[in-house]
Amino acid sequence: MDIQQYMATVGEQARGASRAMARATAGDKNAALSAIAGALRAHRSAILDANQRDLARGRDSGLDAALLDRLELTPERFDGMVEGLEQVIALADPVGGITDLNYRPSGIQVGKMRVPLGVIGIIYESRPNVTIDAAALCLKSGNAAILRGGSEAIDSNQAIAECLRIGLREAGLPETAVQVIETTDRAAVGELITHPEWVDVIVPRGGKGLIERISNDARVPVIKHLDGNCHVYIDAQADAGKAIKVAYNAKTQRYGTCNTMETLLVHAGIAERVLPELAAQYQAAGVELRGCERSRALLDGIGEATETDWAEEYLAPVLAIKLVDGLDEALEHIHRYSSGHTESIITENYTLARRFLAEVDSSSVMVNASTRFADGFEYGLGAEIGISTDKLHARGPVGLEGLTGQKWVVLGDGHVRT
Amino acid sequence: MDIQQYMATVGEQARGASRAMARATAGDKNAALSAIAGALRAHRSAILDANQRDLARGRDSGLDAALLDRLELTPERFDGMVEGLEQVIALADPVGGITDLNYRPSGIQVGKMRVPLGVIGIIYESRPNVTIDAAALCLKSGNAAILRGGSEAIDSNQAIAECLRIGLREAGLPETAVQVIETTDRAAVGELITHPEWVDVIVPRGGKGLIERISNDARVPVIKHLDGNCHVYIDAQADAGKAIKVAYNAKTQRYGTCNTMETLLVHAGIAERVLPELAAQYQAAGVELRGCERSRALLDGIGEATETDWAEEYLAPVLAIKLVDGLDEALEHIHRYSSGHTESIITENYTLARRFLAEVDSSSVMVNASTRFADGFEYGLGAEIGISTDKLHARGPVGLEGLTGQKWVVLGDGHVRT
Repeated sequence: MDIQQYMATVGEQARGASRAMARATAGDKNAALSAIAGALRAHRSAILDANQRDLARGRDSGLDAALLDRLELTPERFDGMVEGLEQVIALADPVGGITDLNYRPSGIQVGKMRVPLGVIGIIYESRPNVTIDAAALCLKSGNAAILRGGSEAIDSNQAIAECLRIGLREAGLPETAVQVIETTDRAAVGELITHPEWVDVIVPRGGKGLIERISNDARVPVIKHLDGNCHVYIDAQADAGKAIKVAYNAKTQRYGTCNTMETLLVHAGIAERVLPELAAQYQAAGVELRGCERSRALLDGIGEATETDWAEEYLAPVLAIKLVDGLDEALEHIHRYSSGHTESIITENYTLARRFLAEVDSSSVMVNASTRFADGFEYGLGAEIGISTDKLHARGPVGLEGLTGQKWVVLGDGHVRT
Repeated sequence: MDIQQYMATVGEQARGASRAMARATAGDKNAALSAIAGALRAHRSAILDANQRDLARGRDSGLDAALLDRLELTPERFDGMVEGLEQVIALADPVGGITDLNYRPSGIQVGKMRVPLGVIGIIYESRPNVTIDAAALCLKSGNAAILRGGSEAIDSNQAIAECLRIGLREAGLPETAVQVIETTDRAAVGELITHPEWVDVIVPRGGKGLIERISNDARVPVIKHLDGNCHVYIDAQADAGKAIKVAYNAKTQRYGTCNTMETLLVHAGIAERVLPELAAQYQAAGVELRGCERSRALLDGIGEATETDWAEEYLAPVLAIKLVDGLDEALEHIHRYSSGHTESIITENYTLARRFLAEVDSSSVMVNASTRFADGFEYGLGAEIGISTDKLHARGPVGLEGLTGQKWVVLGDGHVRT
């Protein structure tokens, strides 16, 4: 296969399809999503069989257990995937919404209209359900999509792609509105991320290595998700009960997620009231604690936190703990070590809460709430294509709106500029 | 001078100052802008003298007349520059505004807070008044700025930089909140655009060559302004009087601006009623016309438009004219040749106007208005740092809001995720 030629065809088809998608009504797009759901149900056994082939090949080639787990489409996951489609159908269509349409002194009316970005390229790793999630969000937001899944999931993804084409065709939308790349050749990714004439934005979903590689090589904008080194700061004026509840949840509700707390900052004035109880709870849950000198004086037998710990996203049952003497020191630590994902303050003090909200430069800033809430579903986006750690365009959880932009509309009556 | 070392100092100072700027109130920032205006007035003769030195050096080194004109700070331009500062003071401060703060089913409140981007790098060519415009917009939006002006304006820019430092100091803000690069060494630009740890976004202002070079080499996001190949489409159901008025204004009000019409599309059904009159007006104004075959049959002695003409941004008294048979052909032409800057339809037909607004994928889309309105002042932004032809983040005229982003804020009362 000539990869350059193949990708040029895919890219030009996507660009062409994006015009039809931009014109499609909410009704058209929902009909396509509904038809795709129908096709998935009708092809359920073929898709699960294809997934079994991927799994067998994965086992033969020695994929580790975690990867195999992510690759597997169990019947429950399959049903969840189809259900996800129904949820996207229920979301409001953001396209075409006009805001701030006002008369200007010249007599023209000026406003902003929400419009699709055009063509979204999505590069992801083994989970085949991402193929449907990503396709659904791109279609609903009026975009065309080019999807590049992991090579280990190629049979599953191609079986799902067939259902996408069936659904799009049934709804009278171009089959090329979502294309799943058919080759596992890595050169296809190189082509995908370097042609602004085909692709308007790339969303990589996967490990930090993948995302850094793509960001470095891309010639089109990338919506990035790098580390989640998240902090909770328990202020001296925190309610101890809330503090313990939130700090426990932020670490232990799930270990491998980007919005999990990795360092706990505790005001020295409240440490004795909250840390021993929290440490007992963490240890009962199997969380390894690593503390600064002052917290180790309070908590017997915990490990020592070094410079590396403050900077690390553990994604594991490990927690770094540091005592501080006030909000300024907490802010300084966050400023230095945070990855700008999510931070939360626990306090009853109005003024400190207000300062924390204003001064912490992270995609989500919270008061008296667990960092685990930083999520598209919890925020009411309905679904998310990812969580952005960028500051431009989309920051934090990215839903349908993050896959759109705004153009200016001007209404006149023969108005000219003087 | 060790450029790497110098730029590292500038970059780290900017990053440090950005935190103080993000905390600054609207009052602080307005006080600084006001003090800067005062310092500029007090140093008026020193700045004009410095500008004379730049001009003399420019003449000696053979700068062309157009460049010398852009470099010159006449007393009127100086006054306009100070007045521009007063206008930025009058603008509302976007920072800290919270929108869409709503309760979620979990009980948390979720909203979005508008926040500065951090550090803005601005690279521009000869006009020294950009130094003040750009500084004012960056400061008002709570950002720190690193400004890199043209080497031919170095004396003017350094004299202005001194006033920036005086004003910032007087208002109690860090002097390093706006830094004007002191070297004309090109390596400084290379450093500025490749260090995301110092700079959050680059705004290049200048010719297409400069912008393409910077976009290609940058490792930080760039807000780009490439071509303005703008179209007016006169529909068969246009009011002939409005059509002639708008099409004349869109071409002739100014020739060198990016929102000037470069190609006029005319429905064949109205061409006889509008084109001869328009051609006479254009020719009286000295505009050279280049037409398709059908328009040349209507207009005696005009030149022939070739493929190159459809794609060209003339920035000059030249206009390409093409007859089309309906909206679809006009949309097809715009889709193929437009640079996505600004397009306008002239029509009294509601349905066609609505389609044009929805289907044209440009940063500004207009009905019955001159493309020349695509401008920050006309749109009510108060001032603009540039016009973006990107689709992500900021599209079209970029004012204070384009120099900010939104972070999520979450308010809870000990809420945890289950």
